[in-house]
Amino acid sequence: MSTSSSQAVRAIDIIRKKRDGVELSGHEIEAFVGAYTRGDIPDYQVSAWLMAVVLRGMTRPETTALTDAMLRSGEVLDFSSMAPRKVDKHSTGGVGDKTSLVLAPLAAAAGVAVPMISGRGLGHTGGTLDKLEAIPGFNVNLPVAEFRRVLDACGCAMIGQTAEIAPADRKLYALRDVTGTVESPYLICASIMSKKLAEGIDALVLDVKTGSGAFMKNEKDAAFLAELMVETGERMGKQVVALITDMDQPLGNMIGNALEVVEVVDVLRGAGPQDLRELCLELAGWMLHLGGVAATVADGQQQSAQLISSGAALEKFRRMVELQGGDVRAIDDTKKLPQAKLSMPVKSATAGRVMAMQCEQIGTACVILGGGRERKEDSVDPAVGIVLHKRVGDRVDAGEPLATIYYNDESKAQRARNLLEQSCEIGVAPPAKRPLVHRIIGETGDKH
Amino acid sequence: MSTSSSQAVRAIDIIRKKRDGVELSGHEIEAFVGAYTRGDIPDYQVSAWLMAVVLRGMTRPETTALTDAMLRSGEVLDFSSMAPRKVDKHSTGGVGDKTSLVLAPLAAAAGVAVPMISGRGLGHTGGTLDKLEAIPGFNVNLPVAEFRRVLDACGCAMIGQTAEIAPADRKLYALRDVTGTVESPYLICASIMSKKLAEGIDALVLDVKTGSGAFMKNEKDAAFLAELMVETGERMGKQVVALITDMDQPLGNMIGNALEVVEVVDVLRGAGPQDLRELCLELAGWMLHLGGVAATVADGQQQSAQLISSGAALEKFRRMVELQGGDVRAIDDTKKLPQAKLSMPVKSATAGRVMAMQCEQIGTACVILGGGRERKEDSVDPAVGIVLHKRVGDRVDAGEPLATIYYNDESKAQRARNLLEQSCEIGVAPPAKRPLVHRIIGETGDKH
Repeated sequence: MSTSSSQAVRAIDIIRKKRDGVELSGHEIEAFVGAYTRGDIPDYQVSAWLMAVVLRGMTRPETTALTDAMLRSGEVLDFSSMAPRKVDKHSTGGVGDKTSLVLAPLAAAAGVAVPMISGRGLGHTGGTLDKLEAIPGFNVNLPVAEFRRVLDACGCAMIGQTAEIAPADRKLYALRDVTGTVESPYLICASIMSKKLAEGIDALVLDVKTGSGAFMKNEKDAAFLAELMVETGERMGKQVVALITDMDQPLGNMIGNALEVVEVVDVLRGAGPQDLRELCLELAGWMLHLGGVAATVADGQQQSAQLISSGAALEKFRRMVELQGGDVRAIDDTKKLPQAKLSMPVKSATAGRVMAMQCEQIGTACVILGGGRERKEDSVDPAVGIVLHKRVGDRVDAGEPLATIYYNDESKAQRARNLLEQSCEIGVAPPAKRPLVHRIIGETGDKH
Repeated sequence: MSTSSSQAVRAIDIIRKKRDGVELSGHEIEAFVGAYTRGDIPDYQVSAWLMAVVLRGMTRPETTALTDAMLRSGEVLDFSSMAPRKVDKHSTGGVGDKTSLVLAPLAAAAGVAVPMISGRGLGHTGGTLDKLEAIPGFNVNLPVAEFRRVLDACGCAMIGQTAEIAPADRKLYALRDVTGTVESPYLICASIMSKKLAEGIDALVLDVKTGSGAFMKNEKDAAFLAELMVETGERMGKQVVALITDMDQPLGNMIGNALEVVEVVDVLRGAGPQDLRELCLELAGWMLHLGGVAATVADGQQQSAQLISSGAALEKFRRMVELQGGDVRAIDDTKKLPQAKLSMPVKSATAGRVMAMQCEQIGTACVILGGGRERKEDSVDPAVGIVLHKRVGDRVDAGEPLATIYYNDESKAQRARNLLEQSCEIGVAPPAKRPLVHRIIGETGDKH
C-alpha cells in the first residue's frame, strides 16, 4: 500500500474478500490496519469492512492477525529486563467490579509484576481509572518512563492508555462506536488483546462477565469471546486463562468510585463482602500461578489470603498510591475519601426474598447520580454511589431498605431511586443460586 | 434528522437495524437518504449501512422506499403536458449493445415519446453516451429545457445524467464503487429505477442481460434483479416489463463507438446483423405496446418493422442527431464517422466451430484499444473497435479471420489481439443454441 492508487485497489479487494467470506491473509490484514492507522485508507472504506466483519465473522488466524496488527500499530512495552514475570488481569466490565485495585497490589506483594493499563467507565459499567482518581492526587496519566519507575519500585503500576499504545485500536474503536460495528466478538477480542499484549506481559487472566449487568448477557456469548481471546493470546505466545464469572448482580455491595475504593481497602484489610473477597482470591490465585510464584492455583489462593492477613497487600497498595501521587491518608482513613453530602434509602414495597436484580439498571442508576458519564464530555463525581443492603436470595421486610443512595443532586437521586426500585424483583421462593465462577477456559479449564 | 446530535443517534439506529436484519420503515429510509444527500450523515456511516444491505438484503417495501427516496432526492421531470405516453428502455449493460440508438427514434416514429437519460461505458461494457459522441458534434449534455425542446420537436432525445436528477444516486454510487458495495441487486435496482423514473416516464422496458458478457453471468441472478425492478416500478405506479436477453456473445458484429453507430444506421436502413435486428424489434414491440400505440407486442413489432422499411425511423434518427448538434452527413455516409488508421485480422489457429466466446474479454479488448476507459479520467477513442466475422456456432477454417481489429496504437492492438485469440473457443460439435430472449418478466410474462 505504498502509493495512493495501488492502495485504493488493495483496500477494496480486502473489503470484497471479507464481504464474500474469503479468509484474509495476515499480510492483507496487516497492510490494511497499517494503512488505516497512517491515514492512507479513509474511514468510509474501513467502516464497510468492519460491517462485513460483523456479519461474516473471522477465522482464528484472521483474529490473531488483526490483534497482532493493532498491537504493532504502536509501542509495545518491554519489561524483559525485570526479573519477575509480568502478569495482568482484564475484565470485560461490570457493576461494582473493583477487583483490579485489589489484584495489582496483591499479586505484586507475591512477587509478580503487574503493569496494568486500564480504561474508564463505559456505558453502565464502572472504570478502573475513575475509581483510582477518587483517591485525592492519584495520577493515572503517567508517561511510560514514570510507569516503569513505579513498576520497578513497587511491582505494580496502574495507568490509562497512552497515545503510543495501539493507536489503531483507538482509531478503530471511535469508528466502530458510530457505525454500529461494536458488537462483534472478533473485533472486541482484537481490541482488548492488542492493548493488553502491548503491556509487555507474559500472561493474562481474563475475567469475562456474564449476566444482567454484563455486556454479554448470556453465557454462550461470554464463553465464545473468552475462547477467542484465550486462543488469540496463546497463538501470540502468551499464557492466557479466562474465567467466566457472574454479573447477574453487582460485585460487592458498593457501587460508585470512592465507595468502591472503600470496599477495596476493606478487602485488603481482610474484611469486605464475601463475593468480592472470593473472586479476588480466585483471580489472584491464577495470577500468582501464571506468574510463576505458585505451583498451583490453589497454592496461589492460599498465598494471596496470607498476603492479605499479613497486611503486605495493603502496604503494597499504599505504596503504589504514594508513588502515583495519591494521598495515603485517604487509604488509612477512608472517611477522607470524597463523601456525598446527602443520602436516602431505597425501601422494599413488599416483604419476601430478592429474586433477581436488573444489574445493568443498577449500574445506570450510578451513572445517573454522576458516578459515570452519560456523554463522553461529562465529568465524574467520585463521591456519589449506591450501597446495597440486600443481595439475591436475601429476605426483606416491607419498608426495609434494599439500598442507600449517596448523592449531591436531588433530581438525579430521584431518577436513580426510581430505577433502583424497578431493579429488585421481590418474590416468595428462594431463587436458584448462580455460581460466582461459571467456567474456566484455558490452562487447566475447559479448553484443555 | 434536524439537529446534528439527534441525527447521529438516528443514523446509527438505522445502521444497527439493517445489521440485525430488522426491516426499516419508509420514513427511516427516506430520512437516511435525505440526510446523506444534504451532507448531514458522513460517508463512513453510509458505507457501513451499504455493506449491511449487501449482506442482509432488503424487503420489497424497503427496496421501493429506497428507490423512491433516491428519486425524490432531486428533480423529477414532468412531461405530463405532452400528449404521447412516455416510454424508455434500459439495459443492464453488455458488449456491442447499441439498441438504444435504434429504439429511441424507432419508438418516436411510432408516436411514443422517449426521454432517454443514459450512461457511459462501465467496466467492459459500452455506454450509450460514448456511442452518440462518436457522431461529430452530437451534444449529450443538454440542460433540461433543451432536452424538453428536442423531445417536443422529434419525440425522442438522448442525454447524460444532469446534476439535478437523483443526486442521492450519484453520491451513493461513488461511495459504493470504492467500498465493495456495488454488487447488491437491491442497490442496483434502486440506482437504475430512481434514475429512470426521474425521467417522468409512464412505462419502462428493461433489457436485463445474462451470460459471459453481462454483469449477471447466470440467469438466476438476472431474473432476480429483473423481478425486483419490475415489482419496484409497479409499486411506484409505472408499467414495467423486463426481458432477460442473451449476452453470451456480443450483440451484433461491431464493438466500438463509431463502429456501433455504423451498425445502428445499418439496422435503421433495414439491414444489419440478424440478432441485433431481432432484439431491436422485440424491445420496440414492447415499447410501442406499453406506449399505447400498439394493441399487442406482436403488433408493435410489425409497426416497428414497417417504420424501418419506410425509412421513417432513420429519418427520426437524423432529425434527433441534427437537433442535438450532430453532423447528419456522418449518418448519411457512415464513412464520415471517425475511422481508425490501422486494422489487423485475428485468425483462428484451428479449423472447427466456434463453441463459445468469452464475451467479457471481448468487451475488455475494446476497452484496451481505447474504446472504453481503463481509468475514470481516460478519454475514449471513438474510432477504434472490433468487427466479428464469426459468431457462436459458425464454422471456421485454420487461418481464417475470426475478427478484425481497428486501432490507432500498435501495442494496444497486440494486447487486444492476445485477449481476442483467447476469447474464442474452437471445437468440433455444434454448440447448444441459446435463445436471444430467455424470459419475459412482468406484464404478460412470468410474473403475471
